[in-house]
Amino acid sequence: MRSLPRVVIEPIVRAALLEDLGRAGDLTTDAIVPADQVSTVQLVSREPGVVAGTACAELAWHLVDPAIEVTIEAPDGSRVQPGTVIGTATGPTRGLLTGERVALNFLGQLSGVATGTATIADAIAHTRARVADTRKTVPGLRALQKHAVVCGGGSNHRFGLDDAVLIKDNHVAAAGGITEAVRRAKAHAGHLVKIEVEVDSLDQLRELIPLGVDAVLLDNMGPDLLRDAVALVDGRMITEASGRITPQTAVGIAEAGVDLISVGWLTHSSRVLDIGLDWVG
Amino acid sequence: MRSLPRVVIEPIVRAALLEDLGRAGDLTTDAIVPADQVSTVQLVSREPGVVAGTACAELAWHLVDPAIEVTIEAPDGSRVQPGTVIGTATGPTRGLLTGERVALNFLGQLSGVATGTATIADAIAHTRARVADTRKTVPGLRALQKHAVVCGGGSNHRFGLDDAVLIKDNHVAAAGGITEAVRRAKAHAGHLVKIEVEVDSLDQLRELIPLGVDAVLLDNMGPDLLRDAVALVDGRMITEASGRITPQTAVGIAEAGVDLISVGWLTHSSRVLDIGLDWVG
Amino acid sequence: MRSLPRVVIEPIVRAALLEDLGRAGDLTTDAIVPADQVSTVQLVSREPGVVAGTACAELAWHLVDPAIEVTIEAPDGSRVQPGTVIGTATGPTRGLLTGERVALNFLGQLSGVATGTATIADAIAHTRARVADTRKTVPGLRALQKHAVVCGGGSNHRFGLDDAVLIKDNHVAAAGGITEAVRRAKAHAGHLVKIEVEVDSLDQLRELIPLGVDAVLLDNMGPDLLRDAVALVDGRMITEASGRITPQTAVGIAEAGVDLISVGWLTHSSRVLDIGLDWVG
Amino acid sequence: MRSLPRVVIEPIVRAALLEDLGRAGDLTTDAIVPADQVSTVQLVSREPGVVAGTACAELAWHLVDPAIEVTIEAPDGSRVQPGTVIGTATGPTRGLLTGERVALNFLGQLSGVATGTATIADAIAHTRARVADTRKTVPGLRALQKHAVVCGGGSNHRFGLDDAVLIKDNHVAAAGGITEAVRRAKAHAGHLVKIEVEVDSLDQLRELIPLGVDAVLLDNMGPDLLRDAVALVDGRMITEASGRITPQTAVGIAEAGVDLISVGWLTHSSRVLDIGLDWVG
Amino acid sequence: MRSLPRVVIEPIVRAALLEDLGRAGDLTTDAIVPADQVSTVQLVSREPGVVAGTACAELAWHLVDPAIEVTIEAPDGSRVQPGTVIGTATGPTRGLLTGERVALNFLGQLSGVATGTATIADAIAHTRARVADTRKTVPGLRALQKHAVVCGGGSNHRFGLDDAVLIKDNHVAAAGGITEAVRRAKAHAGHLVKIEVEVDSLDQLRELIPLGVDAVLLDNMGPDLLRDAVALVDGRMITEASGRITPQTAVGIAEAGVDLISVGWLTHSSRVLDIGLDWVG
Amino acid sequence: MRSLPRVVIEPIVRAALLEDLGRAGDLTTDAIVPADQVSTVQLVSREPGVVAGTACAELAWHLVDPAIEVTIEAPDGSRVQPGTVIGTATGPTRGLLTGERVALNFLGQLSGVATGTATIADAIAHTRARVADTRKTVPGLRALQKHAVVCGGGSNHRFGLDDAVLIKDNHVAAAGGITEAVRRAKAHAGHLVKIEVEVDSLDQLRELIPLGVDAVLLDNMGPDLLRDAVALVDGRMITEASGRITPQTAVGIAEAGVDLISVGWLTHSSRVLDIGLDWVG
Repeated sequence: MRSLPRVVIEPIVRAALLEDLGRAGDLTTDAIVPADQVSTVQLVSREPGVVAGTACAELAWHLVDPAIEVTIEAPDGSRVQPGTVIGTATGPTRGLLTGERVALNFLGQLSGVATGTATIADAIAHTRARVADTRKTVPGLRALQKHAVVCGGGSNHRFGLDDAVLIKDNHVAAAGGITEAVRRAKAHAGHLVKIEVEVDSLDQLRELIPLGVDAVLLDNMGPDLLRDAVALVDGRMITEASGRITPQTAVGIAEAGVDLISVGWLTHSSRVLDIGLDWVG
Repeated sequence: MRSLPRVVIEPIVRAALLEDLGRAGDLTTDAIVPADQVSTVQLVSREPGVVAGTACAELAWHLVDPAIEVTIEAPDGSRVQPGTVIGTATGPTRGLLTGERVALNFLGQLSGVATGTATIADAIAHTRARVADTRKTVPGLRALQKHAVVCGGGSNHRFGLDDAVLIKDNHVAAAGGITEAVRRAKAHAGHLVKIEVEVDSLDQLRELIPLGVDAVLLDNMGPDLLRDAVALVDGRMITEASGRITPQTAVGIAEAGVDLISVGWLTHSSRVLDIGLDWVG
Repeated sequence: MRSLPRVVIEPIVRAALLEDLGRAGDLTTDAIVPADQVSTVQLVSREPGVVAGTACAELAWHLVDPAIEVTIEAPDGSRVQPGTVIGTATGPTRGLLTGERVALNFLGQLSGVATGTATIADAIAHTRARVADTRKTVPGLRALQKHAVVCGGGSNHRFGLDDAVLIKDNHVAAAGGITEAVRRAKAHAGHLVKIEVEVDSLDQLRELIPLGVDAVLLDNMGPDLLRDAVALVDGRMITEASGRITPQTAVGIAEAGVDLISVGWLTHSSRVLDIGLDWVG
Repeated sequence: MRSLPRVVIEPIVRAALLEDLGRAGDLTTDAIVPADQVSTVQLVSREPGVVAGTACAELAWHLVDPAIEVTIEAPDGSRVQPGTVIGTATGPTRGLLTGERVALNFLGQLSGVATGTATIADAIAHTRARVADTRKTVPGLRALQKHAVVCGGGSNHRFGLDDAVLIKDNHVAAAGGITEAVRRAKAHAGHLVKIEVEVDSLDQLRELIPLGVDAVLLDNMGPDLLRDAVALVDGRMITEASGRITPQTAVGIAEAGVDLISVGWLTHSSRVLDIGLDWVG
Repeated sequence: MRSLPRVVIEPIVRAALLEDLGRAGDLTTDAIVPADQVSTVQLVSREPGVVAGTACAELAWHLVDPAIEVTIEAPDGSRVQPGTVIGTATGPTRGLLTGERVALNFLGQLSGVATGTATIADAIAHTRARVADTRKTVPGLRALQKHAVVCGGGSNHRFGLDDAVLIKDNHVAAAGGITEAVRRAKAHAGHLVKIEVEVDSLDQLRELIPLGVDAVLLDNMGPDLLRDAVALVDGRMITEASGRITPQTAVGIAEAGVDLISVGWLTHSSRVLDIGLDWVG
Repeated sequence: MRSLPRVVIEPIVRAALLEDLGRAGDLTTDAIVPADQVSTVQLVSREPGVVAGTACAELAWHLVDPAIEVTIEAPDGSRVQPGTVIGTATGPTRGLLTGERVALNFLGQLSGVATGTATIADAIAHTRARVADTRKTVPGLRALQKHAVVCGGGSNHRFGLDDAVLIKDNHVAAAGGITEAVRRAKAHAGHLVKIEVEVDSLDQLRELIPLGVDAVLLDNMGPDLLRDAVALVDGRMITEASGRITPQTAVGIAEAGVDLISVGWLTHSSRVLDIGLDWVG
């Protein structure tokens, strides 16, 4: 499992805390809860799902009050059921209450992505295809959402515009054709940069195959056309199906024989996982 | 309509761009598209909805290349149909392509929130209730999401822990009762801070009414119980229904006569609005 | 007492340290004081006052050298006399000397605000009025100064433009009248946002009273006019007197029967509290 | 006159704006003032003083809305009287109102420092002494406050711990004597770093004179003792009097013949200059 | 040629300016040069080389004073001779002088990297090998230095730990062998992530070849061993020679037939290109 | 030895780590190395030199994983030989591998500067001259490089434009002559700011001597001219030789009798010190 180094997530968690604490901090808790009261709370799932984001929840509480101790019982990637305890936090009650919402927002959002991913991954487990994410992520959370996709059993596509070449229709148009676009990309790309090309017809695919790129993105093709494309490629490139794939259409597309289905829905539209805070005492 | 001052959104848009550009920038576009090519693109809605986030899309392109000119035709709050042109951008093709995904991610996410809000706002338009957001927002995007809620016809709850007092069950427990919790809050709150209290029974509500707070959050009550609560309050406080309200349950709850229904779903689980980029030339 | 979460104050304290340490750090101490020398120092008040900002002083030293241990003996809100020990710091002499000025600057500035507030709060203790701050704060220190006001027994007005509505003369002019301005504000404000309106005559006040807002700011009125205004309001709104109130004029105004007197002087012009560092050994 | 480069002041002005705008921006103005209304306002002094900080005021409005045009009529360093127009701003009314308080806070605070400095500078103009600042500045505003001191006719002491050596009593104690402390400092300091030493008696001064440092800080000495010290030094070092000098005691100390009097009061306790905003139309 | 988007380089250039301007700005220029003086200067190479970093030089001046206009005559990648004018800047003399050193530091450092790269690229132009950089870069300047390598005719290796897999000896040791290490990497890597493996013997290479990775790093091998390795690979992977290659040893290694030679010296030890500022008037 | 306070170096080390970790962290290590494996590594010099930057290396590992313990055996300023162990790090293997390159980059770069400085300092040890740095530093690393110069036995020139006045030819031209330039500088400079003036002829020097500044920069003069200049100055100012001095020309210039030789090469062109990581187990 990939780590999320603290140096990467800390600025994101700090920003989320400042967004919630504002300038005056937690008016309600400071007014009502004694500073010396200590409590224990549990993060508990209210529904079935897959966990992601425990490091963010832990860090949120730690940055509010370093005296809060957090123990994770269901680490990232765990399958949970209603009632499963994901983690336990003990420390000053004020800090527990002040950090609660930010901790839950990270955990719920990221577990939601992991759970959505797992739903599709499970549904296509009988095929050769893996489910992958896209760059259609929530602004500011790309690294975290892509981590959540891995927690849910998915695979990561590019992290950004700078770690792989993906030639789309507009690039082809600017170059005057697939062959010229690929030539330009190969002339510029470093030796550890993979090149993928988007095609939307078998004719484009036939032009692409001899060019020797790493992968092809088969855009908005139905299962039948995908089957023909996969046959045409015949293992010479990685094949990726893409284009508004939903949990409903994923299985049919995966069964067409592609290596990957990439699904923007994983990160732009999957819903939160319902995780609550139970008061232990 | 509330403004989103550039000084507020600029750090968020810069972070989103850096997240996508990484260290090397747009490998594909730089390799393939000539630096002097100029194009025009249009932001076009693919489905019915409500627009939010145009300022972010515009700023994303502007920060990639100040030479890109953006004209917004359907400003925040506009109702759009499939094919509605939301805005037009003209400038260097490289910059248009490099900034496209970040611009669309902001616009799609925020228009999704606005559209989800409008769906509920429309459905409850025959009641006295307004739909409000919560603090269950995507980390880092609270100000933007709450702006989108207003674009969709909703109302904003607290922006954070520091701009209103909301006494929940754990605060009541820490204080030993609603009366004492309210007393402590009143002793500390500034004169422009409103106080709301969460109750989950009519007994608690009866204790609360004479205490003279501004609003009551009726937690997880069904329509019948809500009706009784509203009758009991009899206009002496703002009444807010809350607790896992979905688009499906919203109407029944709104019809119970409360002033507000607050819906975490607006910001934690509403899906993206499908907005695409059309190439004009 | 409100907490100042470390996540809120840390960026402010870091900036103050960098401002003092520059690029080369403490030339004098590094040249002269051996790295292994350890000392104990005490923060001692040189005059009567009220303490605020101990968390900033402690953090300043901690960020210079985590080996420095700080014990606070007179926490925020304490009344001190000449010679009162506010806190004790023990650790490497270099760090103690390097962090001294920043620690003292925070402690002196904020205790100055707390002391100025307490002076007025004491003077008007026989009236129904509380003393409140304004937005006339030192740039960058608003959250800290408003905390200091609370330490001194004062009350907080708005923290910024976003946590309450305050309709002033220019807003009234833009709307064409108080009634229309209030109507627009009510149409936009969330249910937890209070509305206050500034008036400068009894005529304006008479127009305002039936509009049902939360508070009225009686601008630049003398005690006699304030008495008439308070009588006119008759408990239907919070009454706040404002407008260049000084420690000298505060009592007369408070005795006019208002609920609040808001005093920009607390944060824009109160002087430092003289706190020094004594060398224990 | 020293410039304040925009790259230096921009982070400070941005922080001050975010502090005031929070997450939701200017609730009042957005609700009430039409987006297309344009106005002109003037920054007008309400009392005699010296101006400082116009660049901050201008930048504050510019960052809120780049369409606001600001013309400065009384630039930094100008003497103003009640009614003097310092500058004029024209642009969207919303932006003018939203940026007003931050612009005024910078201008008032910094003009207050400049005015306090000028008061002392004027009072000691018949002596050879200049008035200088200290490191007892408001956290976060050191560069701006020291600029204001220059605007008021004062001179700048060290900007931080890293741009000059100042050997104080605790350094002397750590080194075991003035001679050894100076020796260590000379061994470490670069050739463009000046060395100043604090003494509190004529005996210490006699030890210091032959050591050949650049300046001596005569700590907490009264006029008579200062006269003796100045005579003893006889032009071989710059002489600086320091130690809780107030506007009241400054003249007597300056008349003792020192080159400089350094006054913490300039930056830690001088009050705001009353500058208001007049609505032109 | 790859672009360096302003949003990427701006934080780096701002930090460099703040490092040079400190708190007080340019003491010398502000004291001596009139604010209204305007001049023109030229960036002129003093020796043969390749240009890189013009965007940084331009931005440095622009951030000091937006009134400075910069025209680039020898853009990134240009070959220059002693006396070649790289660019011309016209504007306020103060800003030209204040920004000069930062502009020259960026331009000299990055052109030095480009020139060092070109020296090796030229020397091996008769071989099939290209010269590539490493992660042995100057902290904080990786993106800029890698851009400079491209300007000099080199190729980019990984930008960081996150955009390709490179299995080194310690990874092999942790996994218990090359085969297992590759298996684990393939199981985790996304489909657009290339995998390279470091080997230091032909035995290791023989184990690696059938595993089907993208590239092999032949570590610290002399030309003869490299020739054998290249023959063994026979085109089935990209071959990269690495390990303390200097400008002196580069040709011999390149002639061994590898696809790439990666050279840490390009970014950790190549010297500055001597570029000066000529005063035009 | 000067300290490098953590508050100063932390932002620089964080930026370097983020530059290497990107968004996804260490793909290779996370895929291959078990999370619970613990190791010990040693930082070992591969060649003779002087150490600088150990605090950065230690902090880099600490920020990747606080569980890593680092012991420094050859602190900053130590002379090392091939095989000398500079430090030892023990902790989770993943963190050791992930932080290795950043730790080595800081240590190698800064030790390279220290070693280059020591080479010259040793070569001129028989003269009265000390070797000093310049502002020709690597952008972003000025404070660290200047610290390394001190570690190597050199002396620091100005840290920036704000901590001393250095009047160069363009300033002289703007003022219309050396005498007027010095007059303006003295009128503006604070009492702890030294003034140095650049001259390139004995005529200019003769004009300068009676003006009473602190130091003279003798620009681009050969040994003979320098000898004349030193004789002319006769101890009345610090004398500094400058202008493209290299390790080759340094001795001849130092022997001319100047107090300082300032050498841009120290920071803009000295090569890395070869320091490696040895795996202990």
